[in-house]
Amino acid sequence: MVSYIPPVQDMRFALDTMVGLDAIAALPGYEDASAELVDAVLEEAARLAAEVIAPVNQEGDRQGAVFENGVVRTPDAFKAAYAQYRDGGWNALPFDPDFGGQGLPWCVAMPVQEMWQSASMAFGLCPLLNQGAVELLHEHATEDIKQTYLPKIISGEWTGTMNLTEPQAGSDLAALRCRAERDGDTYRIRGQKVFITYGEHDLADNIVHMVLARLPDAPEGSKGISLFLVPKYLPNPDGSPGARNDVRCVSIEHKLGIHGSPTCVMAFGDTEGAVGWLIGEENRGLNAMFVMMNNARLSVGLQGVAIGERAYQQARDFAKERVQSRDLAGTAGPVTIVHHPDVRRMLLTMRAITEAGRALTYYAGGKLDVAKRTPDAAAKAAAQARVDLLTPVVKAWCSDAGVDIASLGVQVHGGMGYVEETGAAQHLRDARICPIYEGTNGIQAADLAFRKVMRDQGAAARTLFADMRADAAADGAGPAGAGLVAAVAALAEATAWMVAASPEDAAAAATPYLKLFGTVTGGWALARQAAEATARLAAGSGDAGFLKAKLATAQVYADAVLPQAAGLAQTAMAGARGLMDVPEDAL
Amino acid sequence: MVSYIPPVQDMRFALDTMVGLDAIAALPGYEDASAELVDAVLEEAARLAAEVIAPVNQEGDRQGAVFENGVVRTPDAFKAAYAQYRDGGWNALPFDPDFGGQGLPWCVAMPVQEMWQSASMAFGLCPLLNQGAVELLHEHATEDIKQTYLPKIISGEWTGTMNLTEPQAGSDLAALRCRAERDGDTYRIRGQKVFITYGEHDLADNIVHMVLARLPDAPEGSKGISLFLVPKYLPNPDGSPGARNDVRCVSIEHKLGIHGSPTCVMAFGDTEGAVGWLIGEENRGLNAMFVMMNNARLSVGLQGVAIGERAYQQARDFAKERVQSRDLAGTAGPVTIVHHPDVRRMLLTMRAITEAGRALTYYAGGKLDVAKRTPDAAAKAAAQARVDLLTPVVKAWCSDAGVDIASLGVQVHGGMGYVEETGAAQHLRDARICPIYEGTNGIQAADLAFRKVMRDQGAAARTLFADMRADAAADGAGPAGAGLVAAVAALAEATAWMVAASPEDAAAAATPYLKLFGTVTGGWALARQAAEATARLAAGSGDAGFLKAKLATAQVYADAVLPQAAGLAQTAMAGARGLMDVPEDAL
Repeated sequence: MVSYIPPVQDMRFALDTMVGLDAIAALPGYEDASAELVDAVLEEAARLAAEVIAPVNQEGDRQGAVFENGVVRTPDAFKAAYAQYRDGGWNALPFDPDFGGQGLPWCVAMPVQEMWQSASMAFGLCPLLNQGAVELLHEHATEDIKQTYLPKIISGEWTGTMNLTEPQAGSDLAALRCRAERDGDTYRIRGQKVFITYGEHDLADNIVHMVLARLPDAPEGSKGISLFLVPKYLPNPDGSPGARNDVRCVSIEHKLGIHGSPTCVMAFGDTEGAVGWLIGEENRGLNAMFVMMNNARLSVGLQGVAIGERAYQQARDFAKERVQSRDLAGTAGPVTIVHHPDVRRMLLTMRAITEAGRALTYYAGGKLDVAKRTPDAAAKAAAQARVDLLTPVVKAWCSDAGVDIASLGVQVHGGMGYVEETGAAQHLRDARICPIYEGTNGIQAADLAFRKVMRDQGAAARTLFADMRADAAADGAGPAGAGLVAAVAALAEATAWMVAASPEDAAAAATPYLKLFGTVTGGWALARQAAEATARLAAGSGDAGFLKAKLATAQVYADAVLPQAAGLAQTAMAGARGLMDVPEDAL
Repeated sequence: MVSYIPPVQDMRFALDTMVGLDAIAALPGYEDASAELVDAVLEEAARLAAEVIAPVNQEGDRQGAVFENGVVRTPDAFKAAYAQYRDGGWNALPFDPDFGGQGLPWCVAMPVQEMWQSASMAFGLCPLLNQGAVELLHEHATEDIKQTYLPKIISGEWTGTMNLTEPQAGSDLAALRCRAERDGDTYRIRGQKVFITYGEHDLADNIVHMVLARLPDAPEGSKGISLFLVPKYLPNPDGSPGARNDVRCVSIEHKLGIHGSPTCVMAFGDTEGAVGWLIGEENRGLNAMFVMMNNARLSVGLQGVAIGERAYQQARDFAKERVQSRDLAGTAGPVTIVHHPDVRRMLLTMRAITEAGRALTYYAGGKLDVAKRTPDAAAKAAAQARVDLLTPVVKAWCSDAGVDIASLGVQVHGGMGYVEETGAAQHLRDARICPIYEGTNGIQAADLAFRKVMRDQGAAARTLFADMRADAAADGAGPAGAGLVAAVAALAEATAWMVAASPEDAAAAATPYLKLFGTVTGGWALARQAAEATARLAAGSGDAGFLKAKLATAQVYADAVLPQAAGLAQTAMAGARGLMDVPEDAL
């Protein structure tokens, strides 16, 4: 009953309509990314996701990660699944071939990543964090460190973690207190980190922690934070794991969801100090971390899409099987509930938002590839500006959508949705972390408002709006295109307001503004897809069933989601009105 | 950290502004419901809720109800709490004094009920179900049955349950198969029931099941269902529990939330047949059940309000303690997060919707009292029509709101919200059942669309719209009043569309239409409250802090919630467009 079939057809359609593989394959270093190769990669990944990883998701949730005597055991079924994932070379997909990577574009790694996250978010978090460590080391580590660590982490033999949060330093990393002292060529790290995903586990031979800490003479605040590599086992000269470092897991959290994924409290340097290597420059750790974190934010948005897809598939399968009540035409007996309009409404709303989120996320992935690889400076800057603008939108809008969609999935199941054995509730529990981690969605909204829109006076946003207006007017964009015109106007008006707003008003408006931004750009993605579907149908090319379903989801989005745009703009432009004048003791 | 203080001041304000205790006390049989008595009742209930019931909520969740060898054990802490609740006479509040009840109006029982549900939904479900059994027996049982059962169930010594659902009969009760055969003066009941809340437990000396079943010669479908009383223990002639009846709990569900509340699979008549007594007439069981169920639906809406209040209080308390980041004015150090506009936005949105839901629910409770007690036939019919119209709105809109608010509560906590020990996640898990049980929210939407709006061509709805327009124009209604004018216009337009819609379009539109209805009527409630707050502030009467906070929540509702009305109307009026034409295999 609880199964997952990767939506390869829609993934491929999203790459075609939002990215264009030809353009990507024209970038230096991505010459191999032919349509044939991409198809083969997606098909193979789909097999692993469906047959190996998806089946461990529910058992992993039930069993959960266990902490005992300093040791963390992941769910039994995770070990074999991870071994297959690692041995298949999947971890290496988007990384540098010089260190064992396969050098595929990010826009191709995204659908593959989506499959792992749909199959099992708790499982998929381990590779997701790993990816961050690879990016950090690749950009900022010395050649020595790279040679020692990158091949092992890229292959998945070793895993990487991100150690940022401390009890007093969550959204505000400037408040962190972890200390690092110079000790010859290395450093000694001391302090506690919390909420460390896969901080300790039994899937890999070594765990490589990327740790933010302060040097004794560091400036206060965010300009005094350095980044260190702290391995669980210090590598021997031959590269194998050697002596145990002074870092250990103190406990793991009892969480709402992602039970299979250990969330650790980590203690560094309880005795002699954990040995660490500086990555990048002293006191510039936060800058390095933020570059990496932006990509991780796209990945979390992708998790929202992934959990939406999984929840949709499960609800759809249930609705096709569950028999209840006659249909409106008055059949003799009861019918499967997929015949009831309210159930259709739920299913197609789930699907429309998931497809919009997928298209938008892959689009950002494609721009990331251009920004990384194009030799054209202007194109590079434009692509980077677009990625920067959309990153908080993808992260927050898609992750909020993941929660809403998973909740709709529970609802489709009726009473069975509330019973854990059904599996629908797990998706809701799992999805609920995405709006919180990797920068809460409130932080994303502030990032969008202050850094991505107000800082350049809305310039980057306006170039996007121009693109959206052009696409809205395109042949075949249909109802999604028609609705998009008004929606872009509302977004443009709110953007103009935002650029002129006081910091307090902008901060209060940020979340509804981001929701508006996501609603409109999601509609844009589906309008583009509808135009292409219309063209392919007219040309008689492609799978007509799929293309007609795409027109239906675009229609449903235009009717059920886009109409919120005007109201969201109105809410955003209310700013802080009424919010700040209630005294604390009257709250 | 996890505590609950009943919002007696807002409850009292809701009764003043939405009900009017004087009018209620003028009804026959409610003469005792003076302001002084009501105040005393609320204060005493608040003490029990805060000091006795709220403290067992989290432990009840952790421990959960346990099924072993046919026996269900509720969480240890529930037993002492239930004994205090029962011995305090709280269970008898709204019931007939002839059978030991206290005869207080439903509009007073509602805030008291809200307190139990805020304190612990898993605990509060036992009295909630009990109430349904009392209502059924009071309206439909013979004098003999009433004398034997009502005093015991009203006192809370015994508890009542509702046995409706069967595996193949959830939303569609017409499909139920449980059988009943005449056996002298009584009946023998055989069959299985599922999702029976508190179907078996250890809090009471006897459990009285209200069971729907079919007689051998009954017509098919919903017109062939009869209602039976089936006690766990057959009463002795002296009224004490005697021989065990042939009904037993087979298993309990492992659920997303309300862990302390056993959800049972019940087997009737595995051996000699469970002895049952007919309640009301043969084949008229569903009619009796539906009268009762309408009140239970208001109670489930109230649970949504209650969990919203609890989640709000917890998030507010956290936000006042958690220190993170400087404020926008650039304080030297970090501040409590309640100073950040985005956190204020979340808190005040939570509060605004909770207060709107509370006011609307109590309003329906007041109309219920009028409908039950007024000697004026026209007033009775008008009040009943208003209750009938608002019941699905209260149930669905408030229960959906409960989920959204609890989710916002998790978000305010950041990473801590995802950790179960914090308690915020429990509210989300608990809240998620409310849109499902007592008729899914999809069923509520269909009820609103087909039975409450289309059947009378929108007549009952239009009388409500006229009341809302008058209140929107009242002095002091402020921004909520101003926003309400446009919102009522959108609702009226959607209503006119709905009245003329095809069944398929109406069925597809029902859920957004109900959301629109709730959004607008919630805004109406706050506009009325804002007008009264303005008047009291001008007169210098009342707690200025509370009244100003009320104006702020009305403002926030007007800015953050009411602007959705136009978009929701647009979505509703799209009807089934795009929904039904995707072939099943393309879903």
